[in-house]
Amino acid sequence: MSIQSFHPPVRTLMGPGPSDVNPRILEAMSRPTIGHLDPVFVGMMEEMKELLRYAFQTSNQLTMPVSAPGSTGMETCFVNLVEPGDKVVVCQNGVFGGRMKENVERSGGTAVMVQDNWGRAVDVNKVEEALKANPDARILAFVHAETSTGAISDARVLAEVARKHDCLTIVDTVTSLAGSPLMVDDWQLDAVYSGTQKCLSCVPGLSPVTFSQKALDVVTSRKTTVQSWFMDLNLVLGYWGGGGKRAYHHTAPINTLYALHEALVILQEEGIENSWTRHKKNHDALKAGIEAMGLKFVVPEGERLPQLNAVSIPSGVDEAVVRSALLSEYNLEIGAGLGAMAGKIWRIGLMGYASNQTNVLFCLGALDAVLSGMKAPISSGVAVDAARAVYAG
Amino acid sequence: MSIQSFHPPVRTLMGPGPSDVNPRILEAMSRPTIGHLDPVFVGMMEEMKELLRYAFQTSNQLTMPVSAPGSTGMETCFVNLVEPGDKVVVCQNGVFGGRMKENVERSGGTAVMVQDNWGRAVDVNKVEEALKANPDARILAFVHAETSTGAISDARVLAEVARKHDCLTIVDTVTSLAGSPLMVDDWQLDAVYSGTQKCLSCVPGLSPVTFSQKALDVVTSRKTTVQSWFMDLNLVLGYWGGGGKRAYHHTAPINTLYALHEALVILQEEGIENSWTRHKKNHDALKAGIEAMGLKFVVPEGERLPQLNAVSIPSGVDEAVVRSALLSEYNLEIGAGLGAMAGKIWRIGLMGYASNQTNVLFCLGALDAVLSGMKAPISSGVAVDAARAVYAG
Repeated sequence: MSIQSFHPPVRTLMGPGPSDVNPRILEAMSRPTIGHLDPVFVGMMEEMKELLRYAFQTSNQLTMPVSAPGSTGMETCFVNLVEPGDKVVVCQNGVFGGRMKENVERSGGTAVMVQDNWGRAVDVNKVEEALKANPDARILAFVHAETSTGAISDARVLAEVARKHDCLTIVDTVTSLAGSPLMVDDWQLDAVYSGTQKCLSCVPGLSPVTFSQKALDVVTSRKTTVQSWFMDLNLVLGYWGGGGKRAYHHTAPINTLYALHEALVILQEEGIENSWTRHKKNHDALKAGIEAMGLKFVVPEGERLPQLNAVSIPSGVDEAVVRSALLSEYNLEIGAGLGAMAGKIWRIGLMGYASNQTNVLFCLGALDAVLSGMKAPISSGVAVDAARAVYAG
Repeated sequence: MSIQSFHPPVRTLMGPGPSDVNPRILEAMSRPTIGHLDPVFVGMMEEMKELLRYAFQTSNQLTMPVSAPGSTGMETCFVNLVEPGDKVVVCQNGVFGGRMKENVERSGGTAVMVQDNWGRAVDVNKVEEALKANPDARILAFVHAETSTGAISDARVLAEVARKHDCLTIVDTVTSLAGSPLMVDDWQLDAVYSGTQKCLSCVPGLSPVTFSQKALDVVTSRKTTVQSWFMDLNLVLGYWGGGGKRAYHHTAPINTLYALHEALVILQEEGIENSWTRHKKNHDALKAGIEAMGLKFVVPEGERLPQLNAVSIPSGVDEAVVRSALLSEYNLEIGAGLGAMAGKIWRIGLMGYASNQTNVLFCLGALDAVLSGMKAPISSGVAVDAARAVYAG
């Protein structure tokens, strides 16, 4: 056996994540490792919590990154808030609502599912009916921005309905954070988790979470022990909680935390409203190009995420061949469909650092060339001009 | 709020981990991010498994890094192998045996504890008695190298005793991997987990695990669902398992995996036996210096880990003041005691890249100077020379 150092190709990442990482973040991550209990590191942790509060638009005390990918942010919310026998209303309009159901059940709870068509927002009326029919439900769980379909749901109104029925909310904001308006305090969301590799343009591996005081009270007054040692917030807060004294829980992923800190500094420099506007602007340009070619969006306008564009595969086209050509000829990654959407859609991400004019024009040009080369039934040669017209204003 | 980019100081890390990271690994980590389903990345994953098999000295099919810190490697072993009602014999001779107990109980099992003095190896006779007294036990769990005390236990013999009593073994090798002889196949260990930030000199954030076929069979034939979605190996293997086709489970921490790949390439270049020898050599030099000063080791010779040196605090010395002086004047981190050892010992790590002559001489000189400056009751001015004599052979 003699395996050499790994040198990845330079790709343009326009799938559902990871998205292009800002080079400033890659550089930050390679700074010298220090101890996870070093006073200087502890100072950085305090800054990190403050920066995350800005990103989530919250003043929640419990705001911190879980030391593992977004899926553990989800699991952290469920294992801490759900006790055996608890009833949870779960909205499903894509893959991640299904994963929430798994989490409820593995935590010993019962999931009452509210199903919506994939590619549509969660229907608030159906949710209200489910909450009325299940007065013993304690939690409403839903996905703000469904990464598998590109649909955004009205988190503000859903949380309002939940409160009316005395339910806490668990909200997946993996793809919305920093890309679409998300106001944790204004909307009174309770347990919110996200990821780092989408609109924050950071590397994958961490999951920012924020808990309202109401949610935190539930965690600290549980009757049963949290089933996960690693994710038990009662223990994790000994390390990430306030005050100068930090107790060892696990060894934090130091360098990945440097990366997230830098990503959040960049977000603060841009201003979060400017980040939302930029995501919208680049989506408009991409949309103009996609529609000029004659391709169709999966999600109706008004329910569409600017940072994740689900496009139907034109008839007669082998979608995998197209993605493969984009990757091998252009070093460009776009996403395939997931779950029920597999083989039916592409997912074009415009997330964080990747949401820029260069990427939009490059992607449209490449997609146009590959599709027209395959004699796919699209209008070729018009996509890039349509997008340029949007940028020209 | 205006928070600036974080620029850590350059420390020498000689605590219980993280240890000094090889600059090659920091550079590898900052290479361009690619997709977690990119064919080039999948090729890297295959190499990673092969390199980990070398590090663990195993041909186990299921050998991969869990996408989170060492604590999740531990939890992955327990939640996958323990079913509600199962009895597990757990050896405790330090902090991490106690964490194993937590994991057994949170998985719904019953832990039968075998207690040994902290700072000593696990007593094989006591283990044998416990297994005889509990013929219904299904698993024996123990820590190969106790990071909290610096004691090494005889994993080969403990596994032999476990087999005699029809038990699988769960073995913590967080601090032993690459630092002390560890032969997963020769010793027939069943479920083994480790970390990346100790003798592999990689950044923290991943937990390599390896499972024997016997252990894997238990996972795939469970009667109950694994309580953790993130750690359920039945799901994770869809992504990390063999074959060309990878199913999305979670987004892998791409850049941290680059770092681990590079760390394992470096280990392969050095040769694992050479790595073991180097750790022993630098320990001998450190030991000569420590003993020349009149300081005492906690662990008796023969049960002592070369990579983690637990030293008793001399009487009349405030241990925290010493660590603080080393950090502020020398940028040198050594570790405090943990749990029952808090305030009683220092832990001096010589792990991976940090296990070298420069570090040994630097640490001895600094410790000698700080202690003699505090008029601590040691023989000053002799430590470095004693260590140099060992290197001079």
